[in-house]
Order: sequence, then C-alpha cells, then structure tokens
Amino acid sequence: MKMPKKGIITVISGFSGAGKGTVINELVKKYGYAVSISATTRQPREGEKEGKDYFFKTKEEFIQMVNNGKFIEYAKYVDNYYGTPKDYVYSQINNGKDVLLEIEMQGAMQVKENFPGVSLVFITPPDIKELKRRLLKRGTETEEVIKKRIARASEECGYMEKYDYIIVNDGLEECVEQVHALIQSLHFTSNNQKELIEGISSNFNLK
Amino acid sequence: MKMPKKGIITVISGFSGAGKGTVINELVKKYGYAVSISATTRQPREGEKEGKDYFFKTKEEFIQMVNNGKFIEYAKYVDNYYGTPKDYVYSQINNGKDVLLEIEMQGAMQVKENFPGVSLVFITPPDIKELKRRLLKRGTETEEVIKKRIARASEECGYMEKYDYIIVNDGLEECVEQVHALIQSLHFTSNNQKELIEGISSNFNLK
Repeated sequence: MKMPKKGIITVISGFSGAGKGTVINELVKKYGYAVSISATTRQPREGEKEGKDYFFKTKEEFIQMVNNGKFIEYAKYVDNYYGTPKDYVYSQINNGKDVLLEIEMQGAMQVKENFPGVSLVFITPPDIKELKRRLLKRGTETEEVIKKRIARASEECGYMEKYDYIIVNDGLEECVEQVHALIQSLHFTSNNQKELIEGISSNFNLK
Repeated sequence: MKMPKKGIITVISGFSGAGKGTVINELVKKYGYAVSISATTRQPREGEKEGKDYFFKTKEEFIQMVNNGKFIEYAKYVDNYYGTPKDYVYSQINNGKDVLLEIEMQGAMQVKENFPGVSLVFITPPDIKELKRRLLKRGTETEEVIKKRIARASEECGYMEKYDYIIVNDGLEECVEQVHALIQSLHFTSNNQKELIEGISSNFNLK
C-alpha cells in the first residue's frame, strides 16, 4: 500500500499591501492549499471569526503558548503578537495537504532558522510607487498605523534577499500561477525528497 | 528601453542510465533551452561531431584551458577529462537563453561551491533495480566500463542530498514538464532577482 504523499510547508510573506492575501485566497480556492490559522493578540476586526480568521488570544494566553512550544513561529508586529500554532499545520501536511504560512518577516526568519527545509516566498508589487499607493489607499486604518506600516516595509526591504524566492505581483492570475508552479516544484527539493534518497541509497549496495 | 531578461544556468546531473540526455534533448526541442557543449579528452564515438557534441581536446590542450580559467567546472570521469567552457554559456545567458549544464557529480560540486546561486538538479530512475537494468542494457560499452559506471553510481548516491532538487524520471513527458516548470520557477530565486531587490531597496526611501 502506498502512503499518501506528505504535504509541504511554504512561507508566504510580502509587503503589507502587496496583495498576498488575495493571492493566497486564490491558491486555496483554485488548487486546494491549506492555510495556517494564526493566533493573535490583536482585536478582531468586524466580521472576523474566531477559529476561522484567527485564534484570538490575550497577551497572557499567547505567552503561555510560546512557553509551551506550541508555535512554529511567532512575532510582534505593530504592537500585537502573531503566531502559527503547530498542531493544525502538522495535521494538514500529514494528510497530504500543502500548507501556506502567511507570516511576517520576523516569523519567516524564525522558520528559516528552525526549519531550514521550508522555502520562503516573498511577494512584492512591481515597483515602490505602486506599493506606497496601495499602502495609502487602505481606508480602514489610522494614519499612524499606515506610517508604521511604511516604516516597516522599508525595514523589510533589507530582508528580501534572505527569502528563497521573490515573486512580483503584477497581475493576480499570473502571480497565482507562478506561486503554484513554484510550490509544486518545491516538492522536488532534496529536503522534501529525503525518503526517496534514503530508499535509493539503502538499496544500492544490495544485490 | 527594457533590457532583455537574462537567462539562468541550471545544472542537470543524474545516474548514468537515468535518461537525463533524453530529457535534456526534449527540453531543447520543446522549450528552446540551450545546452552547454563540453570539452573532453575522450575519443569521439561514431557520429559525434567536433563543436556540436563535444570539443575534443588532447590532455595537454585541456590542462592549458584549465590553467587559463576557461572552464566553469571540469572533472575526471572514467579516465577522461570533461569540462564546461565559460564563453558559450555566458553568451547564451546574456542573450536571455536558459542554459542547461549536463555535468557529473564532481563538476556539479564545483559549481555549487563557485556559483552558489546556480541550482543543481539530479535526475534518478524510480528505483535502483531499474537503474541497474538500464546501466547493463547499454550495448556500446565494455564490461569494465559498465562496472566502473555502477561503482560510480553507488558513490553518487552519497552526493544526491547535496543537490538542490531531485526529480524521478518515471516517464519522459512528465519528467520533462517537471524539470521545465522547476527551471522556470528558478527565475524567482532571490539570487536571480537581485536586480529587482536592489531596484526596490534603492527606491524605497525616496519620496
């Protein structure tokens, strides 16, 4: 009996306003990717549902989860904590689902350090004027929050080169296809082919 | 004026008998990849043409090219030298062509060390029995050469995990599509997106 193929984890980051949320939604709808659900200490926005959009936690609850090793990564971003609980992600990949982690730069760097086989994808708009335009266009945030975001994006520039892949979102459909083709190719990384390598190696010297 | 997009270099290795030559031929025919032409000290086989299949060199000529820094990599394999001359490869990528380097393990490890941004792809048959069957089936070699090849393949097992990607050749057409999709995705590695990253970074702090 053949075991179901194990899914892989891919980190998706990008400037706030680069449209990565929309890209991820399309990947889920069109190709059946699973998306990790984050825990956060920030207040729910209108319409956000506990256990669907986020697991909403108090700061104290969040820190207890950190101490109990319940996160793949966690980070502080604009005064709030965000983290990726392990359990959901692991159950998905064990069922053969490819999982997307939509996380910020700090968290992505933690993943890079702790899970070197996981690939990091950074989504950027085609140019910086477009990025600023998108950042400023959002109507739901205060000016202070927007300013913090722009400062943050500026800082993130320095981290782009630490990502494994950079994809330009210059059109939703093309970007979705590029990310999908990339992730399917990531099944072939030697890290994700370990069982195959071991199988061949262990059989090679037998008659 | 937009510059033509630069091509990328990808190393293709694989067990002798894994069918990588056929895969590469299809990639050239179907998708227009360029293939580097190797220099070698081995004798031409029947039908092989100078400057098309190989640049045939004496040992002395080959060593002089090594000393003059004319190779991307070179290696000794079954008593002969093989090397990848730089000039042809560089002119191809500068013209926007993606170039495949079909090279052996020793050479691939040199590329990994000297050109860390170049990805290494290893092609393997689905299992080792199939590999041995394929190695033994070739009618054009002496028994001694076949024995050396099998010993070599056994040694190569230990190097598989040093490759970036492992692709199973379990059917020509599928394998060709997988390698093609992979290489197209490799255009997005942060190494191949350096100009983009620099462009965004340098513009970010300007008004």
